[in-house]
Amino acid sequence: MAQNTLTPASTQEDTLKWVANEYYDLNGVHYDVLRDPPTPLEFLRLVRIARPVLMKHSEAPDAMSRWSNEYLTDRMGDSPISIAVTPNGRADAITVGRDGRQYFAEPHVEKMTMRAFLDKITAELCGMNAEDNGEVLYLQSQNGNLYTAQYFDLSAEAETSEYGPLREDVPCENLWCSDALDKSPDAVNLWIGNSASVTSIHSDPYENIYTVVRGAKHFTLFPPTEGWCLSERTYPHASYVRSQATGQLELVPSPPGTPGVRWSSVLDPTNSSALPAEVHPISITVRAGETLYLPAGWWHYVRQSEVTIAVNYWYDMESRGMAWVWLNFLRGLREPPPGNEEGSGRDPDHTFS
Amino acid sequence: MAQNTLTPASTQEDTLKWVANEYYDLNGVHYDVLRDPPTPLEFLRLVRIARPVLMKHSEAPDAMSRWSNEYLTDRMGDSPISIAVTPNGRADAITVGRDGRQYFAEPHVEKMTMRAFLDKITAELCGMNAEDNGEVLYLQSQNGNLYTAQYFDLSAEAETSEYGPLREDVPCENLWCSDALDKSPDAVNLWIGNSASVTSIHSDPYENIYTVVRGAKHFTLFPPTEGWCLSERTYPHASYVRSQATGQLELVPSPPGTPGVRWSSVLDPTNSSALPAEVHPISITVRAGETLYLPAGWWHYVRQSEVTIAVNYWYDMESRGMAWVWLNFLRGLREPPPGNEEGSGRDPDHTFS
Repeated sequence: MAQNTLTPASTQEDTLKWVANEYYDLNGVHYDVLRDPPTPLEFLRLVRIARPVLMKHSEAPDAMSRWSNEYLTDRMGDSPISIAVTPNGRADAITVGRDGRQYFAEPHVEKMTMRAFLDKITAELCGMNAEDNGEVLYLQSQNGNLYTAQYFDLSAEAETSEYGPLREDVPCENLWCSDALDKSPDAVNLWIGNSASVTSIHSDPYENIYTVVRGAKHFTLFPPTEGWCLSERTYPHASYVRSQATGQLELVPSPPGTPGVRWSSVLDPTNSSALPAEVHPISITVRAGETLYLPAGWWHYVRQSEVTIAVNYWYDMESRGMAWVWLNFLRGLREPPPGNEEGSGRDPDHTFS
Repeated sequence: MAQNTLTPASTQEDTLKWVANEYYDLNGVHYDVLRDPPTPLEFLRLVRIARPVLMKHSEAPDAMSRWSNEYLTDRMGDSPISIAVTPNGRADAITVGRDGRQYFAEPHVEKMTMRAFLDKITAELCGMNAEDNGEVLYLQSQNGNLYTAQYFDLSAEAETSEYGPLREDVPCENLWCSDALDKSPDAVNLWIGNSASVTSIHSDPYENIYTVVRGAKHFTLFPPTEGWCLSERTYPHASYVRSQATGQLELVPSPPGTPGVRWSSVLDPTNSSALPAEVHPISITVRAGETLYLPAGWWHYVRQSEVTIAVNYWYDMESRGMAWVWLNFLRGLREPPPGNEEGSGRDPDHTFS
């Protein structure tokens, strides 16, 4: 149990619990809600505190409010776009393979037109996707699919984007954030999916400005101090591959020697029975026109309603000072144990069945 | 020794060393030097990193550059001011009492005129203070002697200052700092002393803007992560009292039940043999017209050249977010042991002789 005072005999887990408890005592589950755009100075004050902020003002310019299926289809034409495909809507998540072992599963990526993609994710919602064998599609390439850091590097060659025709609708940076942090984004990403896709819980070393354009995103958040509750393990890597024989997706383990992936063993952090009592999740729904500031290192699990479109801006976190050390401290007290040993995951039978 | 990877078997000291080592690897002993006043946004970026900053531009308004002994004497007239008096120039420092025990010693405070005070600290420098039995005077009341938080509280009664006649020369706040932090100072202090006074190493939970008006201050700084190197102990409290019988200052232990004072047992952190090898002090000299930003929680030991005058602005540190938790973590892993047990202080024979 957490202690009020640490002693030389305290264990590493005692220390992490002490830090998490002190942090919760000071901050609770509070997050700020803004009605107007912040100035760079106001925003930097919030970044310094590093708590989530829900911004109710519309950050998306008018051009993005026009992003109907028809508009997107018309703008993108026959250009192929890269879409993640999984049998279960869980790309980049812990999944049981045919051998009964748990893997960190990367999605299969297929090229298709925007029209085909939007038709499928809209049809899925209506239960009309039987012809796809229940496969779930998600535009989540998250490699700076709208703008990469190279875009801002005037000395580099011009980069291209699969979504070039949409660029004129999307500002290449968030001005109050860029001015506050004194840098341009490292990546700007377009996300389109439906309620069948879930983003498993993880944290990123980026300041994240996340604007919902259509639909709604449901975030379940945990501060960096509660990472210890999320039971990271090291899982073997695997990828979905479409079998040429059957046409079905199969989870194929990566070759021996592929580095393992450190990932939370908590599959559904909205299920409180999967978590220790000391955890304090924060639920925030971000609706069309709203923006979430998600500080670097915060753990997030994300679901979405219907067809949801979002654009996010990742900014490199500040590496000077203490922030990087603390995030490493909170995650890196020890190498996580392997994910396929008895008791290594929380209720795997339930969650993987 | 510090470890690259912590394990469940790591001790608390291992953990602190790991954090200190990671922090040093990332930040070294770097500090920024500014030639021009920062904007509030530029300053807040520096506050966020929480490293010292030396500002070479003159922050003191012209009025303060006129602060000769004659000017100060003329402005202050016969008003009594509170001056700390010690036999050794070590107010608020660990000192051996007549019983051979170590105490945290508060200075005797005497009232005198600015003229008498300045005459004495100027004469001390010339070896002309034999008539004072070698006593050392320091204007260091540090209770918001120029402006207190009450000054900024429009609903409170007007407060008074011993240095009221000097207020018109001293801005009540530092505008770029107040705007950056979105608050007014908690205290603004005048400091006047000479090279006979030394400030023992300690840290404050305040953001500190320290402007030197005359002379020079020599800071020896340690980041909050290296607090473990400074070997805090809990010392009994004592105060200097002037004996009515002899007229001499005597160190009088406070009554039983007076809380002990947590203080570093390192008396001279510029003496590297008094410190473990893992420590990385930063030396910064702040000269007339220059300003030091000293982030909350940084350990500082301060000496001065000749007669030195300074004004500092203390701002409450940000209590939301992680900063407060981390400072407590770095200092509060355990209650420090008593300061009068064998091996409790570093080389006490040398340093107290």
